[in-house]
Amino acid sequence: MTAADPEAGNQAGRDSVAYALAVDAMGGDGAPGIVIDGLALAAERHPGLRVLLVGDQAVLEPLLARSPAARAMCTTRHAPGVISNETKGTAALRMRDSSMRLTMEAVARGEADCVVSAGNSGAMLALAKIVIKTIPGIDRPALAAISPSARGDVVMLDLGANVACNSRNLVEFAIMGEAFAQVVLGLPSPTIGLLNVGSEQIKGDDRVRQAADVLRASPLAGQFRGFVEGHDITAGTTDVVVTDGFTGNVALKTGEGALKLAGTMLKQVFNANAISRLGYVMARPGLDRMREWLDPRRYNGAVLIGLNGVVVKSHGGADAEGFAHAVDVAMNMVTHRFNERIRQGVAQLGPVAAYPAPALAAAEIKPDIRLATTG
Amino acid sequence: MTAADPEAGNQAGRDSVAYALAVDAMGGDGAPGIVIDGLALAAERHPGLRVLLVGDQAVLEPLLARSPAARAMCTTRHAPGVISNETKGTAALRMRDSSMRLTMEAVARGEADCVVSAGNSGAMLALAKIVIKTIPGIDRPALAAISPSARGDVVMLDLGANVACNSRNLVEFAIMGEAFAQVVLGLPSPTIGLLNVGSEQIKGDDRVRQAADVLRASPLAGQFRGFVEGHDITAGTTDVVVTDGFTGNVALKTGEGALKLAGTMLKQVFNANAISRLGYVMARPGLDRMREWLDPRRYNGAVLIGLNGVVVKSHGGADAEGFAHAVDVAMNMVTHRFNERIRQGVAQLGPVAAYPAPALAAAEIKPDIRLATTG
Repeated sequence: MTAADPEAGNQAGRDSVAYALAVDAMGGDGAPGIVIDGLALAAERHPGLRVLLVGDQAVLEPLLARSPAARAMCTTRHAPGVISNETKGTAALRMRDSSMRLTMEAVARGEADCVVSAGNSGAMLALAKIVIKTIPGIDRPALAAISPSARGDVVMLDLGANVACNSRNLVEFAIMGEAFAQVVLGLPSPTIGLLNVGSEQIKGDDRVRQAADVLRASPLAGQFRGFVEGHDITAGTTDVVVTDGFTGNVALKTGEGALKLAGTMLKQVFNANAISRLGYVMARPGLDRMREWLDPRRYNGAVLIGLNGVVVKSHGGADAEGFAHAVDVAMNMVTHRFNERIRQGVAQLGPVAAYPAPALAAAEIKPDIRLATTG
Repeated sequence: MTAADPEAGNQAGRDSVAYALAVDAMGGDGAPGIVIDGLALAAERHPGLRVLLVGDQAVLEPLLARSPAARAMCTTRHAPGVISNETKGTAALRMRDSSMRLTMEAVARGEADCVVSAGNSGAMLALAKIVIKTIPGIDRPALAAISPSARGDVVMLDLGANVACNSRNLVEFAIMGEAFAQVVLGLPSPTIGLLNVGSEQIKGDDRVRQAADVLRASPLAGQFRGFVEGHDITAGTTDVVVTDGFTGNVALKTGEGALKLAGTMLKQVFNANAISRLGYVMARPGLDRMREWLDPRRYNGAVLIGLNGVVVKSHGGADAEGFAHAVDVAMNMVTHRFNERIRQGVAQLGPVAAYPAPALAAAEIKPDIRLATTG
């Protein structure tokens, strides 16, 4: 594999070359600087990686000129439009020349295998559904990621792609989460829990109870462990934790915040006096491993699953190391042909529409939700 | 103050005596044993405390006979019915002789100032609304508690009393949470945040956006800091964090679980070898203080607020120490005449119904929700 031509830009000849990743240079709080710094780190870890970098070329080129590693790896493509965190989904859809859209179009056209963007999640979801489209049988893509637990990493979804969900969406998330856990955790038969306010069957609202009823009667029944609670996430009670995007987003950030609080307090404890500082030095190797294992950057890179292509979402506030980790996640997906496997998983289980009807009652499905077969 | 007569039970003469607390002996995973052990611990901390202990006397008396401290403090009242975690709210309402109901009736009749129960939260909420009733101007009570943050304790609500909430409920929770924070955190002007999936005004669903609009136009506008995210809870970004009961319950338990995970890992780090064990000994005073500060038992005792009486909910899985802490919380409420203060707070702000209309559109209020004035 040869390094990309630094001056290539928009040449048609180059567009026919396949890239592993199409990267949205303009998404995220520190874009495009942090994106390019992150790519420079990724270049060391993934020799030979070819990236299509989409954004405002007038801004990108001078930055790339200062970063030889990123420069050698990237081919730029000009996109004048930028979707900010304030851009609503509808406005993002109207913008035809945004860096996020052109990045997704590269995947939809088969130029690249995977999208990486740290941009606005709402816009990313809306665009991905329109441009890349969902796998037949899946109504809504979900944002999935791994999170630390006492029994190893667990898969959580949805983390914010869908703030309002019905029971049907939750069932779809369970199906997709199971396939995702097979790939990213390497488990042949991952267990699944549905997040609720209690573990008893009567707890929660109709939404979660109906989704649980459907799952108990589905081919996933053997892996479904019923309701789990907030503390079960870090306990690792199940390999997959399914919830709506509002709750999942809050839970993920609350857990991260609590670990950060523990870290801050620990720092204060060890810095209290000379004796405790010496204590720190003595326990340091283990403490360093613990910090590394819990580092939120290690968990950066949520994946929008259920689409005809892989879309990796880096946290908007991630630093270069965090963005590089999102690239790692993307490369893991590409290398393990994740999307092919999830598609097979969904196909084996059959479309959600074939599941027992109670949870899919008309009253429960909002009129604006398209049927599964319309993708 | 004299010790209660061990054999008093249901005598009318004794019923006219005021108790600080009416305690549901039969609620919680380890009831009634853990309740009585918890009261024995509370007896040491609150000399002279008089408790009306409600439950199955045939079960309670032998247990009390083995616990002189609890025995001296408690007067028992027989209640044959027990509400379990599996009892639905409607069934709990039909049961006229449950320990939970008779405990609440003691407060409603003015025999006791405060209820303490570790029982089923759904039943507790349903019974409290019927038996103790909400403060005029408040539609739904909320479960509030304090949680640790980097900037001191913060108030969180709702923690599970209402799994489905509309924007009007969220506004009420903000009003009540502000008054609660004044009392329990001793702050003259607590700041308020509304939990969401992002801090930008366009983030989230209609529910949180409408509630935010109402709060920005309310007398609390000066204290309202807009949307906060999961990580803001432990960062202590605001003194009060408002959310629906589903999200709040999950967030609280996720945060607790994450801190527990950090504690478990820390134990492993220090136990790894002789050097790290020595490191632990050197940092121990600070580590002990940290563990004590983050101990979930210190935060046990959520308060159901918005009622004409104080109801303290101990965690169903709390041990005796945790239950004793719930008694501490109750005594704090009683001593500081909390309910009088929250009532004044609500009165000063005016009923929620007087707030600008947009968030209270008819379509948004479910038909089963009674108007504020019917309490």
